[in-house]
Amino acid sequence: LHKRHQAALKQKLDKLHAADIAYILEVLPLEQRLLVWNLVKSELDGLILLDVSDAVRETLISDMDTEELLSATEQLETDEIADLAPDLPEEVLQELLEHLNDQNRERLQSVLSHREDTVAALMDFGMVTIREDISLGVVLRYLRRRGDLPEHTDKLFVVDKRNALKGVLPLKRLLTNPPEKLVSEIMSKDVVFFHLDDDADEAARAFERYNLLSAPVVDREGKLQGRIGIDAIVDYIREKSDEEMLSQAGLLEEEDISSSVWKSAQNRWFWLAINLVTAFISTRVIGLFEDTIVKVVALASLMPIVAGIGGNTGNQTSMMIVRSIALGVINPSNVKRLIYKELAIGLLNGAVWGSVLGLIAYLLYRDIELGMVMMGATLLNLLVAAIMGIAIPLVRHRLGLDPAVGTSVLLTAMTDGVGFFIFLGLATLVLL
Amino acid sequence: LHKRHQAALKQKLDKLHAADIAYILEVLPLEQRLLVWNLVKSELDGLILLDVSDAVRETLISDMDTEELLSATEQLETDEIADLAPDLPEEVLQELLEHLNDQNRERLQSVLSHREDTVAALMDFGMVTIREDISLGVVLRYLRRRGDLPEHTDKLFVVDKRNALKGVLPLKRLLTNPPEKLVSEIMSKDVVFFHLDDDADEAARAFERYNLLSAPVVDREGKLQGRIGIDAIVDYIREKSDEEMLSQAGLLEEEDISSSVWKSAQNRWFWLAINLVTAFISTRVIGLFEDTIVKVVALASLMPIVAGIGGNTGNQTSMMIVRSIALGVINPSNVKRLIYKELAIGLLNGAVWGSVLGLIAYLLYRDIELGMVMMGATLLNLLVAAIMGIAIPLVRHRLGLDPAVGTSVLLTAMTDGVGFFIFLGLATLVLL
Repeated sequence: LHKRHQAALKQKLDKLHAADIAYILEVLPLEQRLLVWNLVKSELDGLILLDVSDAVRETLISDMDTEELLSATEQLETDEIADLAPDLPEEVLQELLEHLNDQNRERLQSVLSHREDTVAALMDFGMVTIREDISLGVVLRYLRRRGDLPEHTDKLFVVDKRNALKGVLPLKRLLTNPPEKLVSEIMSKDVVFFHLDDDADEAARAFERYNLLSAPVVDREGKLQGRIGIDAIVDYIREKSDEEMLSQAGLLEEEDISSSVWKSAQNRWFWLAINLVTAFISTRVIGLFEDTIVKVVALASLMPIVAGIGGNTGNQTSMMIVRSIALGVINPSNVKRLIYKELAIGLLNGAVWGSVLGLIAYLLYRDIELGMVMMGATLLNLLVAAIMGIAIPLVRHRLGLDPAVGTSVLLTAMTDGVGFFIFLGLATLVLL
Repeated sequence: LHKRHQAALKQKLDKLHAADIAYILEVLPLEQRLLVWNLVKSELDGLILLDVSDAVRETLISDMDTEELLSATEQLETDEIADLAPDLPEEVLQELLEHLNDQNRERLQSVLSHREDTVAALMDFGMVTIREDISLGVVLRYLRRRGDLPEHTDKLFVVDKRNALKGVLPLKRLLTNPPEKLVSEIMSKDVVFFHLDDDADEAARAFERYNLLSAPVVDREGKLQGRIGIDAIVDYIREKSDEEMLSQAGLLEEEDISSSVWKSAQNRWFWLAINLVTAFISTRVIGLFEDTIVKVVALASLMPIVAGIGGNTGNQTSMMIVRSIALGVINPSNVKRLIYKELAIGLLNGAVWGSVLGLIAYLLYRDIELGMVMMGATLLNLLVAAIMGIAIPLVRHRLGLDPAVGTSVLLTAMTDGVGFFIFLGLATLVLL
């Protein structure tokens, strides 16, 4: 790139929003990405690092020295530093901690000490606190003197002198009530709030259910520790659903379109290897029936169908269960009904599709017994699929594991293996 | 249920938030759900109908007569009525339209005339407009006189007398600037806004990118038509990712855990039928090679593995493409690079996993030629999988179809059929 072009490019970049530069960096191949990255004005470095995807962030950070990283992160809020922390080199993080004031260091350490899927990890510290015994007029003057409000402030938090949360004052009420009224008269005491170690999933659900924009976070003693904003919730929901889709398609983590072939391949090997192992185990069943297949070779082309429809119905069932668990609508009285229902659907599907498949097998090979075997095996395998589709996610959930991740792989392996066994076994009994 | 118990239940329900009652209705089986529904105080009916899932909403609406539906919907905002409209009986909708004032009728008809995935469908009308030539003090007095602000108001919209959007005044700035300043001095003119027929997906991405809480919607002439709030965006993101997951698992639409066996079965038949058809077609390939299988029966237990690993890698590739399309990071210069990359990964994977599978096949059957066939077929099928994994979503996208829905089914059918053909074909050539 020519010097003059670089200057022109830099001029254009200087006019852009950090989020737009982040988007451009995502799209560019590695080499050009780093070139643009070095032209970006350094005040935006921190915000851009926050905005880009994990894969891109890694490439940008590995291009920066300690000095650059420190100046980029120093412009950030404490909660933003916490978001970047896992990707920062240890020595940068240590130096950052030293540079922070006591309050912010404590906050950062508190966030980093909580697990990633807790409320603490979603929290920011952009809260404005007031006391309940002052008038709205005083609050208005205080805000004007303060000069600026943190992003996404839709309510002020009312605390006592111990910093314990007493209520919230929505800006709406502050703006529409006479200035001589007291905060305590106007504030809402019926507050949706969270504890530091509450589940992030539950917080996300509460935000959706009550249409919240922000909510206070308190510690065990009810003291205000931070705030969750809807922006963090949106990011969390997006990330979660992304993760699930990726693992369902057999990817370990987010992969950036410009990451190298070697890195991308590795990212995909974990689930590929697992799939391969399960496929090998389930197809070993076929080896047991080689004699049968040699005698009735039609079985070879029919058996993948029986296995396949089992996998499909099993996945439908397990998806219903995984969703119900995620929505929190499963309870002991439900489970029984759910199991009966899924078994009934399996039986109904088995009768319908079993008949269809049996008929087609008969028409293809003009062999009534083969048609009956196809029908019976389909029916039985759909019942197995229903049972597995219920059992796998429920057991994983009981064991405290994510009911979604890996369920599909496990289930397909089961319905394949059992499907082959039922079909070939029945064929051996009936046809030979 | 006893009368006295009913009274006690009603008392408890009367104290609950509409969203919580909606949650309870979701969890209950049909009969008990309708019982509770009839105890809920009618002022909440409308809000609850909005909150419950589509499947539950249907059961509730079918339990209400025209009178009840009218009184439930009359309490709602125009944009909320628009959300319910698709589920309401025609005569209720007509009567509702007659009851609305001119402005609201026009608004409702405008929303209903736009497609479901446009900005118009996400919009609400809770906007507060001001003129630019007044002082902040006047705005504050106006708001106090108004007495209430629509939910989620984080900014006021500045319009001229033609109702054309001139800028926005964030409440933050209103609160932190001296009252004698003019709106025109303080307002932000650099506004993210949308047109009525903009894509909802794009709006959602803009909300995430710029961390918006609300944004104005204008018509072609720049006149303010409504507002999008982050709550609508969150619902939209959730629904979209839900839809994708459901269709990936082979479900047509959201199914409620208490919907009947018959209805649930029907919901699952669409994708099952498609899967069955594709499975039949792809396994017909096996029939072509029955002679080969009879001679080398080991092929029967190895062929599902070759087909399976093709499906898995193909799904990984197509997921990368679908995501890149969704994130908007695919452009003509990218596509070529992407194709090369996926082919390279396919080649690498083919070499690695082909060797592994070839070796295992050799060890199992002590037949070098069989091992070579396994290796070659795996390598070739992984290349086919990469090509299909790229081509299917890209072509669907070009054709204006959703690149995600159905891609996995189509892809698996291809990798199965082609996988069987390559493996059995190679075996016929080499082994016989």
